[in-house]
Amino acid sequence: MGMSTALLTDRYELTMLDAALRDGTASRRCVFELFGRRLPGGRRFGVVAGTGRLLSEIADFRFDDAELAYLRDNDIVSPATVRYLEGYRFGGTISGYREGELYFPGSPILTVEGTFAEAVILETLALSILNHDSAVATAAARMSIAAGDRPLAEMGSRRAAERSAVAAARAAYIAGFSATSNLEAGRSWGIPTMGTAAHAWTLLHDSEEDAFRSQIDALGTDTTLLVDTYDIRQGVETAIRVAGTGLGGVRLDSGDLPTVAASVRRQLDELGATETKITVTSDLDEFAIAALAASPVDAYGVGTSVVTGSGTPTAGMVYKLVARQGVDGGWVPVAKASTSKASIGGRKAAFRRRADGVATAEVVAVADGFDEVDPPSAHPDARPLQTVLVDHGDADAAHLGADGVTAARAHHLRVREELPVMALALSRADPALPTVYEVSEA
Amino acid sequence: MGMSTALLTDRYELTMLDAALRDGTASRRCVFELFGRRLPGGRRFGVVAGTGRLLSEIADFRFDDAELAYLRDNDIVSPATVRYLEGYRFGGTISGYREGELYFPGSPILTVEGTFAEAVILETLALSILNHDSAVATAAARMSIAAGDRPLAEMGSRRAAERSAVAAARAAYIAGFSATSNLEAGRSWGIPTMGTAAHAWTLLHDSEEDAFRSQIDALGTDTTLLVDTYDIRQGVETAIRVAGTGLGGVRLDSGDLPTVAASVRRQLDELGATETKITVTSDLDEFAIAALAASPVDAYGVGTSVVTGSGTPTAGMVYKLVARQGVDGGWVPVAKASTSKASIGGRKAAFRRRADGVATAEVVAVADGFDEVDPPSAHPDARPLQTVLVDHGDADAAHLGADGVTAARAHHLRVREELPVMALALSRADPALPTVYEVSEA
Repeated sequence: MGMSTALLTDRYELTMLDAALRDGTASRRCVFELFGRRLPGGRRFGVVAGTGRLLSEIADFRFDDAELAYLRDNDIVSPATVRYLEGYRFGGTISGYREGELYFPGSPILTVEGTFAEAVILETLALSILNHDSAVATAAARMSIAAGDRPLAEMGSRRAAERSAVAAARAAYIAGFSATSNLEAGRSWGIPTMGTAAHAWTLLHDSEEDAFRSQIDALGTDTTLLVDTYDIRQGVETAIRVAGTGLGGVRLDSGDLPTVAASVRRQLDELGATETKITVTSDLDEFAIAALAASPVDAYGVGTSVVTGSGTPTAGMVYKLVARQGVDGGWVPVAKASTSKASIGGRKAAFRRRADGVATAEVVAVADGFDEVDPPSAHPDARPLQTVLVDHGDADAAHLGADGVTAARAHHLRVREELPVMALALSRADPALPTVYEVSEA
Repeated sequence: MGMSTALLTDRYELTMLDAALRDGTASRRCVFELFGRRLPGGRRFGVVAGTGRLLSEIADFRFDDAELAYLRDNDIVSPATVRYLEGYRFGGTISGYREGELYFPGSPILTVEGTFAEAVILETLALSILNHDSAVATAAARMSIAAGDRPLAEMGSRRAAERSAVAAARAAYIAGFSATSNLEAGRSWGIPTMGTAAHAWTLLHDSEEDAFRSQIDALGTDTTLLVDTYDIRQGVETAIRVAGTGLGGVRLDSGDLPTVAASVRRQLDELGATETKITVTSDLDEFAIAALAASPVDAYGVGTSVVTGSGTPTAGMVYKLVARQGVDGGWVPVAKASTSKASIGGRKAAFRRRADGVATAEVVAVADGFDEVDPPSAHPDARPLQTVLVDHGDADAAHLGADGVTAARAHHLRVREELPVMALALSRADPALPTVYEVSEA
């Protein structure tokens, strides 16, 4: 059991709860849907990430003495609401896309069913986690596609707030990165970690040679030496003189990388270090990685751009009430109607339509009733996209912890194969699949 | 005492520590400097934020059994290093800019002195916190300037990872915001919280009128009603009919805000609700706020753009070794020399030069020795920018907790007054002050 996550919440969620407990609507059964209206940044597909983290944090969404005292002492809610929150545990059901799944505008990524009271107060937490993690995963998937078979490490912790850094490492790994520099991501989520030395290591020593020799003594010849603290040509020469031609790798963290990589490869080969690998790590993003495809680079390290979503730091998903119980107990689909932010009411079911194994459309079936949503008819090759994640308050353990991360990464790499080739291009475009709404026969 | 923060760290910090303990350089006294090479995003000034959080998290930077087990079981470091980390507490000294202070390229925002071992492993944590919080505060200050005397609330939690959201609310408040929607920011940092209702509140009820009536019953006539769920004109009419002309406010969350605000103001006045305030909250950033200066808007709520640094989600600061003890015990200034990322070695002292109370330059005095840095001569109106934050491991309590936040906000609002007027413009430009390096006389 972790720290309480209950106050990672916008005040208005509790204000609404307060008023709803008072007027009796708190117990109305509701369906909230989490979805994105568009793919920001001109991306061709989005990648769902954060689901496993969310399920854990919902389990920790409880109001202990400290949380209740804050709410009471600051008159955030009434004493009756404090009493309700004392016993709060989410007891509803959440279905949704598997972590690692692709999504498109309107994809019903999460569907949260419960009383208004229990479901409304999860809004902020659900959006915080999914918006951040999916933005990182979406950018990371593009980098992973651009890197092809070359290993790709996430090393952007210093460019993200300290706890987001862990979430970002996790999201990048799910989207195809091979490792992270972040130790907490290694401990919490079982992600492979990497890293050898910074420029400070070289500067600490009386000479670059001393620094290299000491690193090799400690880590072995198979280590990667950072050769650009002073002069790169001299650095490479010293590295091979000290380590021998069996040196594992050199790392380049500055300069025009295609030029520098080519010249370092030539120099290494001339020195006989033909197996020594070159890792590059300076200000890479998906475009820089793609531009290095023809360069003699063996591995990439990416920092700032992946943890900040490469220009799109939030996925912009929203959490909307789409259906609720009416006065007569029957179900009412609901939707905001006003300009520019309209949404589609009613519970949804989602399928990816495919032809010859290639995805052709995101099909969203909208229920005209509530409980039943029929699969879209006459599409035998449509893959259902939703699964039950939380059943009456119980999270499916398959999505949790390190095992959940491993499963999400495997799922992502598998479903990415279904994408049409044009979805893999990096330039700005419309979503690669159209979202097709179908009104299901009740 | 909070959760351990020790693994919020790049693996290479511990790899370097491991090798340095082995070759004896771990005990060399070192000076690391945290600074930004530039102000990303064409900003005219930067705002330092995160310092108080960093001091708390350094106090929690300790390796307990769980952290040590992870490092040992995964062979991240040697058994000797595990033994060193068992007793680790930062015992060095940190001086730097006060939280809320302005900064420019090359400003020595933090100077960390200690052994290589104790100082190098704080790199990732220090950069994570300062880079994120300063990016948010820098964007927030521009919004606060654009908003003038109108209240400005931060409500972007759902567009930031769940723990960064708390840090972002804190940074925005330090930079001049008046409140946040984030309850944890209220509890942890004493920041005023706000919020009433979302569209879900209206959709939950059988009619907009029912929703408004219930909200007023629970929260009083002084509340703010969200009037754009269906038709805005009808929503305003219903709001005043239900609440009377004494209604506190209405909130607009969609549409072209200058047009909508003007028409809603006219309607409210015609209905006699001349004191009812208008809050706007849809996709605002500093430019949209500035564009609303002449509109009848009483308060702003800002979400995505402030928590993501309005296009610049990280401040891009670095943490560099600038001086160390040499073999003879004397001090050696050091610096990376290679292309594009060169830095200036030696310990620094910093002053803001002013003329008639208006800032004219960021003066950075570089020591040619180590221990002493003289203040720049002949500038009686130069304001020293550094203060001792941690003295031999003990943090100055004035910077911690809610009191630290209050002090940082007051300091920020005070030093912002020193800026030349052209620094307040929103367009992209060079930094408003030049950074002038002076070699001090030892």
